[in-house]
Amino acid sequence: MKPRITLLAGGVGGAKLAEGLASLCPPETLSIIGNVGDDQEFHGLWVSPDIDTLTYSLANRIDRQQGWGLADESHRVLAGLERFGCDTWMSLGDQDMATHIFRTQLRRQGVRPSAIAQSIAEALGVTLNLLLPTDDTLQTRLRTDQGWLAFQEYFVRERCRPEVREVRFEGASEARPTPEAMEAIEEADILLIAPSNPVASIAPILAVPGIRRALEATRATRIAISPLIGGHTVKGPADRMLAAMGYPSSSLGVAASYAGLIDGLVIDVSDGADRPALEAEGLQVMTTATLMTGAEEKTRLAEETLAFAGSIQQAQEEAEA
Amino acid sequence: MKPRITLLAGGVGGAKLAEGLASLCPPETLSIIGNVGDDQEFHGLWVSPDIDTLTYSLANRIDRQQGWGLADESHRVLAGLERFGCDTWMSLGDQDMATHIFRTQLRRQGVRPSAIAQSIAEALGVTLNLLLPTDDTLQTRLRTDQGWLAFQEYFVRERCRPEVREVRFEGASEARPTPEAMEAIEEADILLIAPSNPVASIAPILAVPGIRRALEATRATRIAISPLIGGHTVKGPADRMLAAMGYPSSSLGVAASYAGLIDGLVIDVSDGADRPALEAEGLQVMTTATLMTGAEEKTRLAEETLAFAGSIQQAQEEAEA
Repeated sequence: MKPRITLLAGGVGGAKLAEGLASLCPPETLSIIGNVGDDQEFHGLWVSPDIDTLTYSLANRIDRQQGWGLADESHRVLAGLERFGCDTWMSLGDQDMATHIFRTQLRRQGVRPSAIAQSIAEALGVTLNLLLPTDDTLQTRLRTDQGWLAFQEYFVRERCRPEVREVRFEGASEARPTPEAMEAIEEADILLIAPSNPVASIAPILAVPGIRRALEATRATRIAISPLIGGHTVKGPADRMLAAMGYPSSSLGVAASYAGLIDGLVIDVSDGADRPALEAEGLQVMTTATLMTGAEEKTRLAEETLAFAGSIQQAQEEAEA
Repeated sequence: MKPRITLLAGGVGGAKLAEGLASLCPPETLSIIGNVGDDQEFHGLWVSPDIDTLTYSLANRIDRQQGWGLADESHRVLAGLERFGCDTWMSLGDQDMATHIFRTQLRRQGVRPSAIAQSIAEALGVTLNLLLPTDDTLQTRLRTDQGWLAFQEYFVRERCRPEVREVRFEGASEARPTPEAMEAIEEADILLIAPSNPVASIAPILAVPGIRRALEATRATRIAISPLIGGHTVKGPADRMLAAMGYPSSSLGVAASYAGLIDGLVIDVSDGADRPALEAEGLQVMTTATLMTGAEEKTRLAEETLAFAGSIQQAQEEAEA
């Protein structure tokens, strides 16, 4: 039987690994739990940037140049909204707008957000299990030197320039995990955490009560892939946000942010010097080239990570026997 | 002092006369009361076709070919919604979509619909008083041989093919007139009813309690322009709808539908034979070419109608003196 794989993923790095896994695994064996902490209402429409990046990537409709949004996009609705005096710093394309209009309409009709996400994915030809950690509203808020900001305000409008001092996940304490996400964690053979921003993309998933405990309790082999290369992020503010949270801005910091939740860590060759310290923490470590620029590299990293998980499982089974 | 002019207008004919008047009158002297009976929600967005046709026409941004929608339009949002399985028979363009998104957002924020309509008009450069008859929801429903239909379902989806048996204005009995519309009727020197569909465009305005009484009581000279040419409509189902309401499908039927509300009627030269019968009803009658194909004809019809109103006023003043 094919192993059941569950991936926790956010941002562009998460979407890329998701694509790599999707190229290898039968869709019914693959569940991806996305991040809703970046969700925000724009112009009365509910926008879910991380989930859309996952969906558009898996549908092969993503704008490959920028890593988000749809390819061959236009912005005529946004130009119209600008004429009405609306803030248009959040670049929402016309084809993309259809997603937000459809999502918002179904939300107002009371359809579960996770059912909506799955419907959107299916309409675009994505057949794996695209899951939300919660159907409740959970929004990442950052306290910065410019005051409290929603994630998109910090990330898009302010281009990550403000200094982050504190991160909160508004609504997390009342959020209930979706049964689908809980089952995907509990029933997985391999549990992966994508090379996403640990603070901005993965922590909001872990903040949903029950999800962290499920990760601690699952019998799955649990592997994270560090988003850092040479101690720095490829894109986005993960290194600075780790530092702001009091973690080292290195694969050691990534490991520390997942303490108790992972059995192994995949790090970039450029961070190979961290290996002994990571092993001293009891982690299995794999060193490889983690930069995913094209389809081949996504598949290769996914393949190597799955093989790494398999070797850890085998060693555990031999130790138990 | 310039006369204060108030126009009741709906549909393409209403928008054309509005343009003619706007080309002649200072904007502060001109108030246009539009029709909200055609309003309907599509994809969770509140669409107000008649008001938008008025606004886009007056902003000189209308698609002149089709008489509605914006010029130079694309339909990428709609194509996206179609992919999600949505009904897309209502052709909503991308630029047009910005209007519906903006309107819906403000409505949800509790802004008065008439304030929203004025904001949209102003953003597009329209400076006259664009008024709604009511801020409450009033929707035209047609009982046809295919059952009850909303106006856009009948007009756009079914292309006016069903036979109309009954017309109702849902919400009318609880609707309150806007103070702006009431004032525009009460304070007008000249009150015009555009060459619009009397049943589908003007009757929903008159159905708002208080509006009909204000028209009966105003000291303004009241002139309607018949939408018929040779007993038929230029566009749309006005002739058939008049017949369905039990009125003759002629300028006599138009006059009958406005009984007690008008002092004079402008009819097309091709309907000149109706003149004696109209005069026998106590109406002043002007016969002219009423087809408005270009800007010049809109201005000319507006000019002739205002001169006709002026002559009626003068005759009344002389009679009173």
